Amino acid sequence: MATIRLISEAEATGKVKAIFEDFKRTRGVDYIPNYWRAMAAFPDYLEATWNKYKAVMLGGKLDLRTKEIIALAVSATNGCDYCINSHTAAVKRLGLDDAAVVEIMAVVDFYNASNRVTTGLQLEPDILPAVDTSEVLPKVAKPRGRTKASAAGKRK
Amino acid sequence: MATIRLISEAEATGKVKAIFEDFKRTRGVDYIPNYWRAMAAFPDYLEATWNKYKAVMLGGKLDLRTKEIIALAVSATNGCDYCINSHTAAVKRLGLDDAAVVEIMAVVDFYNASNRVTTGLQLEPDILPAVDTSEVLPKVAKPRGRTKASAAGKRK
Amino acid sequence: MATIRLISEAEATGKVKAIFEDFKRTRGVDYIPNYWRAMAAFPDYLEATWNKYKAVMLGGKLDLRTKEIIALAVSATNGCDYCINSHTAAVKRLGLDDAAVVEIMAVVDFYNASNRVTTGLQLEPDILPAVDTSEVLPKVAKPRGRTKASAAGKRK
Amino acid sequence: MATIRLISEAEATGKVKAIFEDFKRTRGVDYIPNYWRAMAAFPDYLEATWNKYKAVMLGGKLDLRTKEIIALAVSATNGCDYCINSHTAAVKRLGLDDAAVVEIMAVVDFYNASNRVTTGLQLEPDILPAVDTSEVLPKVAKPRGRTKASAAGKRK
Amino acid sequence: MATIRLISEAEATGKVKAIFEDFKRTRGVDYIPNYWRAMAAFPDYLEATWNKYKAVMLGGKLDLRTKEIIALAVSATNGCDYCINSHTAAVKRLGLDDAAVVEIMAVVDFYNASNRVTTGLQLEPDILPAVDTSEVLPKVAKPRGRTKASAAGKRK
Amino acid sequence: MATIRLISEAEATGKVKAIFEDFKRTRGVDYIPNYWRAMAAFPDYLEATWNKYKAVMLGGKLDLRTKEIIALAVSATNGCDYCINSHTAAVKRLGLDDAAVVEIMAVVDFYNASNRVTTGLQLEPDILPAVDTSEVLPKVAKPRGRTKASAAGKRK
Repeated sequence: MATIRLISEAEATGKVKAIFEDFKRTRGVDYIPNYWRAMAAFPDYLEATWNKYKAVMLGGKLDLRTKEIIALAVSATNGCDYCINSHTAAVKRLGLDDAAVVEIMAVVDFYNASNRVTTGLQLEPDILPAVDTSEVLPKVAKPRGRTKASAAGKRK
Repeated sequence: MATIRLISEAEATGKVKAIFEDFKRTRGVDYIPNYWRAMAAFPDYLEATWNKYKAVMLGGKLDLRTKEIIALAVSATNGCDYCINSHTAAVKRLGLDDAAVVEIMAVVDFYNASNRVTTGLQLEPDILPAVDTSEVLPKVAKPRGRTKASAAGKRK
Repeated sequence: MATIRLISEAEATGKVKAIFEDFKRTRGVDYIPNYWRAMAAFPDYLEATWNKYKAVMLGGKLDLRTKEIIALAVSATNGCDYCINSHTAAVKRLGLDDAAVVEIMAVVDFYNASNRVTTGLQLEPDILPAVDTSEVLPKVAKPRGRTKASAAGKRK
Repeated sequence: MATIRLISEAEATGKVKAIFEDFKRTRGVDYIPNYWRAMAAFPDYLEATWNKYKAVMLGGKLDLRTKEIIALAVSATNGCDYCINSHTAAVKRLGLDDAAVVEIMAVVDFYNASNRVTTGLQLEPDILPAVDTSEVLPKVAKPRGRTKASAAGKRK
Repeated sequence: MATIRLISEAEATGKVKAIFEDFKRTRGVDYIPNYWRAMAAFPDYLEATWNKYKAVMLGGKLDLRTKEIIALAVSATNGCDYCINSHTAAVKRLGLDDAAVVEIMAVVDFYNASNRVTTGLQLEPDILPAVDTSEVLPKVAKPRGRTKASAAGKRK
Repeated sequence: MATIRLISEAEATGKVKAIFEDFKRTRGVDYIPNYWRAMAAFPDYLEATWNKYKAVMLGGKLDLRTKEIIALAVSATNGCDYCINSHTAAVKRLGLDDAAVVEIMAVVDFYNASNRVTTGLQLEPDILPAVDTSEVLPKVAKPRGRTKASAAGKRK
């Protein structure tokens, strides 16, 4: 059972009410999930998270199906029951069947395994991404945070 | 530095040598990454993992790019430096640019956040996937493992 | 080394430039940390995260020191080197000395331990928070997501 | 259901009985939570953990409310249902309302997100804490563990 | 409830049926656990995992009891309810009593705690394993993955 | 680099000095590892942890080799570089060779994988340990924490 009281649509006012309505309109549903109701106890947090949701999940260039697959893989890795249910529901609505869900889990399986083995044996990375560092390295070479600390006479 | 001695191609023999050659042929590369060299200290494990890799990553129906994106998202969630490097390299080879890598991380960001909040507030799942349970429920109703324990007279 | 090219202040334009300037003004610093430079490859994500930062860390009612302590405890639990460094720097700037940092780690130690033991022995929660459920329970009793799935004839 | 039999107060003897009584007296409660009952199957472990609890949570200089907030943040990050319930109960007893609990989760949200992104992009720390290294560095420069191994020739 | 339909023994055919039979024969049981039934939606993945199980758990040189203890410790650390139950059952079948299960958890407790503290304080490793690096270092000094990236003109 | 100043043996006094000496005598070594030096900034925490170490690792009934294997498996799962190094060193000192270390990692691999898949598919536990609940259930049926809250009417 939730450890806090969830705000219902009936009692939402002001900023919370506006976001609840935008949520239903944007997502095309007629209810507010517990996740969004819970955040309503701190309205500025609810607002910032809803705006971030729209930027991250509804903006950008990757398709929504790929993003929901990432969400499911992350949720399985973290063991979040609420999120595993909602993102499995999402990928099924977007056309994946049980075999595809298990195929996603097979990849989650393989890399949770290899993540632990490579770290557990302290293997050094030997396949590195190509990175264009033309502009960046000079800044990295003189990290200002460290410089400030040194200026305080405590760290050389 | 690796905590064990890694097997080099030059010294590989038998099953290990055969897998190393299959790896280079299948992947179209001319070297063996540290991950595969490390497993060679336990050849049956190397073999089983290589066969699983081929089933999971080269078989199935999802495209390889989606699978490498899952691998990167899982590796970022688990904090595996070796794997973050190699799977960022992989998605870049498959056509993603820096903006797309950051977009993947934005989704990883959003769901690592919401995973912790929904669990941290003990929210009950309210969006559930459609599941065809026609054949399955009778079996679940009588879990045999528990039955066996009860038979031992210890658990009712 | 970063797996992507970080945007420098010199080359920032438009939305990114405006956020970089707001960041320096709001935080009272004269540089942009790597974390914020990295997100600049996806400007809408940078913007949403910066707005969320201001709502969560600079708004609300808890004091900033408590929030930075939470940030450090979470970062230690997740093993994020970048974040452990920056939030240890933050709590030290806010007046904590080495003994206080170790005291925070002692609490992180105790609960990472007890978290795993209570779950590892599948202990049932027996100390529950008081929750005002007067308005909420009727909604929870009829989760609409599940109802919709059932309506599709797939889940009973 | 717990995977082991929990020791009840009625059957506790010797060291376990003494600790159960100290627990009730120290905490001002009239029952023993499952967590402490479970550890009683290994009395020396129960004793050491109870003594550590008193040193860490009842000693030191940080106030108890801050420590219970850390405990809740860690438990949410680890996904421990038992602990999330008991530490939410604790912070509520210490005066926090639902809005404050959600504000704690908002910070947990923000840093679980940024932890994964900074690691997922392999960002190098650029904000470092001031550290007084005057006495320490010479010792670190000649780690004795490594020296001993090297003395064996090639660390065999 | 499972998010996918689990394949029952009655409906298994071909590769899945053969593996289910090998599973019952090899393990000496008369039912198929949910874990193996779930993977049956992607038969090649089921097959590869079953072969890996036999190589890892039934092969090698460490005894099965030690391996089941590792499985339980990993499952407690990850918070997997399904696995905690099945591996506690396994170690009990192999002769461990409640006190031994709690002793395993005491070790899981101690190292989950110290893992977070050493990382949370960014302690540098000072006890290193002896490693025979006679053959390996020359390969590591010239990582071929990096060389290829450089050859592409993108990374120096 | 450590985020705090580590206490050296030369400057240790009182309780810290006594523990450092007991550590060297008990472990048969002539130096204090960084982990123990770091905790010295909060002497009561150092003391409680050292006493817990002796109870958990040097007491009980499981042999030290099994406990160091658990420590290594937990450290690999959590990704703690410091601990992976020191516990690999420990199991090697206790007689394990590289093949055995990789075999431990193969088990860590298998169960990190299956942990995520069983949770990611929300599989219900169907292999349960035998538990003697003869004395315990009555207590569990009336959890006092919950009873007290209920007595308050609606857990306010």
